[in-house]
Amino acid sequence: MSTKPSIPQGTRDFSAEVVRKRNYIFTTIRNVFELYSFQPLETPAMENLETLMGKYGEEGDKLIYRILDSGNPFTKEFFQELSNYLKANYDNVEYLRSTNEELKDITNPFGNALFKLNPEVLESISKELSTKKNHLTGFKNEIADKALKYDLTIPFARYVAMNHTKLTFPFRRYQIQPVWRADRPQKGRYREFTQCDADVVGSLSLLNEVELANIYHEVFIQLGLKNYELKINSRKILVALAELCGGADKMIDITIAIDKLDKIGLEKVKEELQQRGLNDDQIKVIESYLNITGTNEEKLTQIRSLIGSGEIGKQGIEEVEFVFQQSKNTNIDIDFTLARGLNYYTGIIFEAKAPEEVKMGSIGGGGRYDDLTGLFGVPNIPGVGISFGVDRIYDVLEEMNLFPENVQVSTKALFFNMGDAESRFAFGIMQQLRSSGIACELYHEATKINKQFTYAEKKSIPFVIIIGSKEMEEKNCAVKNLATGNQEVVAVDKLAEHLKNL
Amino acid sequence: MSTKPSIPQGTRDFSAEVVRKRNYIFTTIRNVFELYSFQPLETPAMENLETLMGKYGEEGDKLIYRILDSGNPFTKEFFQELSNYLKANYDNVEYLRSTNEELKDITNPFGNALFKLNPEVLESISKELSTKKNHLTGFKNEIADKALKYDLTIPFARYVAMNHTKLTFPFRRYQIQPVWRADRPQKGRYREFTQCDADVVGSLSLLNEVELANIYHEVFIQLGLKNYELKINSRKILVALAELCGGADKMIDITIAIDKLDKIGLEKVKEELQQRGLNDDQIKVIESYLNITGTNEEKLTQIRSLIGSGEIGKQGIEEVEFVFQQSKNTNIDIDFTLARGLNYYTGIIFEAKAPEEVKMGSIGGGGRYDDLTGLFGVPNIPGVGISFGVDRIYDVLEEMNLFPENVQVSTKALFFNMGDAESRFAFGIMQQLRSSGIACELYHEATKINKQFTYAEKKSIPFVIIIGSKEMEEKNCAVKNLATGNQEVVAVDKLAEHLKNL
Repeated sequence: MSTKPSIPQGTRDFSAEVVRKRNYIFTTIRNVFELYSFQPLETPAMENLETLMGKYGEEGDKLIYRILDSGNPFTKEFFQELSNYLKANYDNVEYLRSTNEELKDITNPFGNALFKLNPEVLESISKELSTKKNHLTGFKNEIADKALKYDLTIPFARYVAMNHTKLTFPFRRYQIQPVWRADRPQKGRYREFTQCDADVVGSLSLLNEVELANIYHEVFIQLGLKNYELKINSRKILVALAELCGGADKMIDITIAIDKLDKIGLEKVKEELQQRGLNDDQIKVIESYLNITGTNEEKLTQIRSLIGSGEIGKQGIEEVEFVFQQSKNTNIDIDFTLARGLNYYTGIIFEAKAPEEVKMGSIGGGGRYDDLTGLFGVPNIPGVGISFGVDRIYDVLEEMNLFPENVQVSTKALFFNMGDAESRFAFGIMQQLRSSGIACELYHEATKINKQFTYAEKKSIPFVIIIGSKEMEEKNCAVKNLATGNQEVVAVDKLAEHLKNL
Repeated sequence: MSTKPSIPQGTRDFSAEVVRKRNYIFTTIRNVFELYSFQPLETPAMENLETLMGKYGEEGDKLIYRILDSGNPFTKEFFQELSNYLKANYDNVEYLRSTNEELKDITNPFGNALFKLNPEVLESISKELSTKKNHLTGFKNEIADKALKYDLTIPFARYVAMNHTKLTFPFRRYQIQPVWRADRPQKGRYREFTQCDADVVGSLSLLNEVELANIYHEVFIQLGLKNYELKINSRKILVALAELCGGADKMIDITIAIDKLDKIGLEKVKEELQQRGLNDDQIKVIESYLNITGTNEEKLTQIRSLIGSGEIGKQGIEEVEFVFQQSKNTNIDIDFTLARGLNYYTGIIFEAKAPEEVKMGSIGGGGRYDDLTGLFGVPNIPGVGISFGVDRIYDVLEEMNLFPENVQVSTKALFFNMGDAESRFAFGIMQQLRSSGIACELYHEATKINKQFTYAEKKSIPFVIIIGSKEMEEKNCAVKNLATGNQEVVAVDKLAEHLKNL
């Protein structure tokens, strides 16, 4: 191979140091999930393409990685599809008998046919192929009917729909797995990254939202992120606002505009609202909505006077108030500007923000959805879930220097290689150490002592064990502490205990 | 969606019970790797296609899952490639100006061109496309330049080649990650499955082989598979056999035939050798080779008299003898019929077999390779590695009933929901239990007690905690053991301790 080896843009290799730090985050989150009685689930990396398509909006669909079956895209299915398509759309196509063995058993009306096209038809097809997305999808499905999962929520919904007769509801599951998005890579955004989700489905109770708010708190406090913020709102409050501005059909326009507040500021949001056809009075209402400030209690008072008269608004406010009052989470910030994009949420929505000092933004999010499994033919299973943005959390902990030192548990002892007989003797002792839970290794060859020292230092192994012929005879060994330079003689049968105490 | 949701053939969802059992295997293997001073590494699911292609033989290449970039296969790169290809191969192709915006900036010699083909050329192209694999690969690469990893070894070699200036050699890494193969699914063979590998690179020392043999033993003994077998051989012995049969060029034919011995038996192997052009004398030598039996010591004596006179044979025998004598692995079975297919091994080879009673065959394998990173432009880094077949091991432990009971750590206590005030009170106690490491949950709504009991039973939660208004007042609770039916009253501040002792 002439080119230097590389990995795909937006993907990463994780060295031992990084794996251990990531595992520290995963373990913290997993333990809290388990204490809150969530059970693990794992779904395949590959889903059927039709499971994922159409679930993430038009933009999301474009970011789904499709998987080709083995072989090449010019499969007989491809020719079959193309043939069907041409027959359906064109009268004046001539066909050519294929001499290709692989295409022999195509059973379409034209038999073993490839295509002989006149120029007009070809031009027309080339236009169709490039403009009619639906037809293209048809072709693509034939050659790529599987895809990498884009998030954990849709595969979870698919799982629940497939297994709903066997599951006990409310069903509480957590899932920690990689997902893939064909996104433009940038700082903090990868094409392969890990999501940590917890969801409860089959329950309308707001107690679930309270528990999930508590989980956020427990995890972030354990990770040392005392000043994180958990923003909460309810989609119902946004619906009430839309109604106040002339009807629920304004909901999407308002949500899209509000969602940009953080990035573009109030004035630009107002401009966008105007462009989206809202009039001055309506924009004034939205402005007063966005200007609600103060303590959580003060905000609740203000929102009540603005939209608390209608049924849906009242419900939304009660939800937010309930979660705020019942949760032990002291970092809750009721924030009516929180919108969470254009997804499937219908009730409470969450967004966790990193401490302000690190300027990392969102490190988690979630909310309640009414009917996710309905997409897969099993309606009426409402749910609520949260997600942790592990890659962002990693960067935050790194920047704030919050990874505990003992995350890096390296090998404790290197046995110097002093020759064949000595190595054999060392092997026996190493087995004892390992059964006491002490990680150790023997240098792979009997070479200069200096080289063996260097190896221990480079690998940050804290102790080296030296066993020469004299030590073998006396059944002891020299233990050298590389940090202090101290050296002690220790009886072989006391070595495990000795190292454990160091 | 009209069709029932499903997952791709050969993939699996893992429920909580299965996840916990799998984690038991992973944790066992990981702990042993760590005790032997191996460090974790994780590589992306996606590799560049060129990293993987050509590394697994022609059959392996076909089993690699390619990933399409977002968008459709009719990209401008596709048209660009097609255009270049046509120009290079045909003189009499006419082109048609494309009206397609997306193809506007193609910069090939024909500018914004689609293709107007005369029938003869089209037929000729259709033949080319279906027969010239290389050209097809050219097309495919443009639309699918990434692929799912097929094993952990090649990505590891790619990682070492990319980072060799920064790594400390010998470099000992382990890796536990899923891999994907577009194989025909069958019992025990999946399209997405997990590999557990440990490799040492940058060392020629046979001590590595000894340690790896010890790791196999440690893991399988810990998993309870006392009667597993670790077969070892050396590729050098097979080379010596080939030389004895008329030259090293016979190596591939002999290896392919011998590799089938388990499946097809000696007579069919002899037939195959004959078909592959070996004469009766040569086949007789191979037969006497395959008929070597007895204890390990006896086998060593027999092989020595058969092929021990040549240099390479002598080396191979010494290697096998060294590992056998130095390792503490008492389940080693020296087996000269072990060949390990047509891969990159050059020295010692391993294959771990499940206990005979379960008829599961191979549950692990590995060996020494001379120069894996040479594939990526960094030569002279020899290595040796082993792999555990986790899915097979899972099936073996299941069949032999060897999963420990405590693998399934479910939620310990369900708090009954007796109303709003009671729930709030329960929440406080639950926080105490959780900080003592006890997993618990509150039933999500205040409904009939029977329904709540059923939920606890279905989820195998062993204890239910009942707190009504009387208990709230007296600051205690009723603890009911669902297995025995016993019920006790316990002071709230003693509950964590009480449950811990149960």
